[in-house]
Amino acid sequence: MDKKVVLTGIKPTGMPHLGNYLGAIKPALELAKSYDARYFIADYHSLNSIKDPCLLKEYTYEIAACWLACGLDPQKTLIYRQSDVPETFELTTMIMAFTSKGLMNRAHAYKAQVDQNREKDKPEDHNINMGLYTYPVLMAADILLFDTNYVPVGKDQVQHIEMAVDIAQAVNRNYKQELLTLPEAVVSENTQVVVGSDGRKMSKSYDNTIPLFITEKQLKKLCNKIVTNSQTVEEPKDPDTCNVFTLYQLFASQEEQAVLADRYRAGGMGWGEAKAELFRVLNHTIAPMRERYVALMDDTSYIDKILDEGAQRARDLAAAKISTLRRAMGFDH
Amino acid sequence: MDKKVVLTGIKPTGMPHLGNYLGAIKPALELAKSYDARYFIADYHSLNSIKDPCLLKEYTYEIAACWLACGLDPQKTLIYRQSDVPETFELTTMIMAFTSKGLMNRAHAYKAQVDQNREKDKPEDHNINMGLYTYPVLMAADILLFDTNYVPVGKDQVQHIEMAVDIAQAVNRNYKQELLTLPEAVVSENTQVVVGSDGRKMSKSYDNTIPLFITEKQLKKLCNKIVTNSQTVEEPKDPDTCNVFTLYQLFASQEEQAVLADRYRAGGMGWGEAKAELFRVLNHTIAPMRERYVALMDDTSYIDKILDEGAQRARDLAAAKISTLRRAMGFDH
Repeated sequence: MDKKVVLTGIKPTGMPHLGNYLGAIKPALELAKSYDARYFIADYHSLNSIKDPCLLKEYTYEIAACWLACGLDPQKTLIYRQSDVPETFELTTMIMAFTSKGLMNRAHAYKAQVDQNREKDKPEDHNINMGLYTYPVLMAADILLFDTNYVPVGKDQVQHIEMAVDIAQAVNRNYKQELLTLPEAVVSENTQVVVGSDGRKMSKSYDNTIPLFITEKQLKKLCNKIVTNSQTVEEPKDPDTCNVFTLYQLFASQEEQAVLADRYRAGGMGWGEAKAELFRVLNHTIAPMRERYVALMDDTSYIDKILDEGAQRARDLAAAKISTLRRAMGFDH
Repeated sequence: MDKKVVLTGIKPTGMPHLGNYLGAIKPALELAKSYDARYFIADYHSLNSIKDPCLLKEYTYEIAACWLACGLDPQKTLIYRQSDVPETFELTTMIMAFTSKGLMNRAHAYKAQVDQNREKDKPEDHNINMGLYTYPVLMAADILLFDTNYVPVGKDQVQHIEMAVDIAQAVNRNYKQELLTLPEAVVSENTQVVVGSDGRKMSKSYDNTIPLFITEKQLKKLCNKIVTNSQTVEEPKDPDTCNVFTLYQLFASQEEQAVLADRYRAGGMGWGEAKAELFRVLNHTIAPMRERYVALMDDTSYIDKILDEGAQRARDLAAAKISTLRRAMGFDH
């Protein structure tokens, strides 16, 4: 029996951080072991915000290098640039005709922008481009083009998968065929919020991230910048309310965690030491990946080769799907 | 010096009528004599309303046969199906990121639907699909993909060309290059409103059209159905307030018009005679085209051949344009 298809995309808008690694990349690589995995670089989604061609290219290489450095095996997992599969855009145009505008009005990302505009007494759609507004349609096309069964997503993205299902059902209903596979969102059970250096959720918009592949020196510096309380060295400390320890838990072994927690409670350990220990385990996990990442970024022609091969396989699948859809809709001849 | 490019598309939603012929097809064929003309069948635009594949195909052949029967020379004028140029859809996705949502909110066709919904106390976006809402973006892509200089349009379409200009300017400004040619709307100076059988503008939505290539018998019947007043045969009649004469003027020579106007004013001529005279001149114009049309519709493989040749030439142009744009935006590698 064919394996089920799992698909996800990462938008190239800058180097992934620890939160992206734990929340998206690592679970996706885990899923790739049991499913037919297709992971793409959503470069056309980035165009809404990244209008500098050099930056867009750089970010695209960074995401590709990141996947590969983290362990994606291009022989087993399909990796490709969204822009290399133009069938995506034809499918987008097709499904526009089956997407109600009301559905788009309810999209979280759009609504959040409208709310921001209202707060600032601006017109509702101030500074909103059609790329942002139609983003769920493009995302539905990304998913539906590959007969995706499962899409690993964060909770805030579940709505987009539901929209893709709505659209697919409208198409299937009209043509009285199971033309499009209905995808399911896979929300990781044990999704922990990865905290940033200020204790809030790690997010680029809070400027509190620890990017995955910065240098050792930069990593040490960012560890030292994590906000702690102002207890003295001597005082016993509570690991459960400490940002340093919260991050430590995500990377240290059970044993290491127990040891550090004891040192917290015993007193006599300053924040500098705790941060140095966090840096040690972080760097232990990241260093081998970072080494591969740096080597890959030094040889973008190798990345191009991997992505070009992926593009070829992705296009074969996509072309077959579009051809079926064109026939059903009356565009064949 | 290269000829300027003129481009227009006709949406396959049923056989064109006399209004389409005089308002769009004939002027476009006239323009094709002096410009590098690219005329396409906007089949993806039809998908918003035509969700029956057989009907969509049939209508597509009808539009193609119609252009050819009316005199389009495929050796000189590029004719193609929109669906055969998938670069259109990639350009659509590109320019979404440069189209403000506020611009789309002001599109006439969308606003008309919203007004209708309001009148019926329905939610604003009731029954509006994203294909309708984003239609001006797809139309801009149709135009901009071919470096179009001129687009012959009716007055109600001028806004769409202005939108295409807005979008092209946003792209050019961002990338600091003249990537996209700014199109100009060409509104025919002497655009006369072609009246339908009930005296209102001839339009499918009024169910008052005279389709271009119905049979002689049907044409005669539709001529007889044109609404006139109830004057008796004997009474002198006013040609200037008569629907029959209004249509007659569009097809009869100056001399024929003068003769019929005299007969109107003299009295003694019944409406049946006037309608028979209208039928005669209409059929005189239409018959040779109808003959070609019927032969073409009998040989759709010939139409396919013409459209496939057009598709090849159109794709060559489109691929070059997309390639330039991809390079500018950072999608090349």
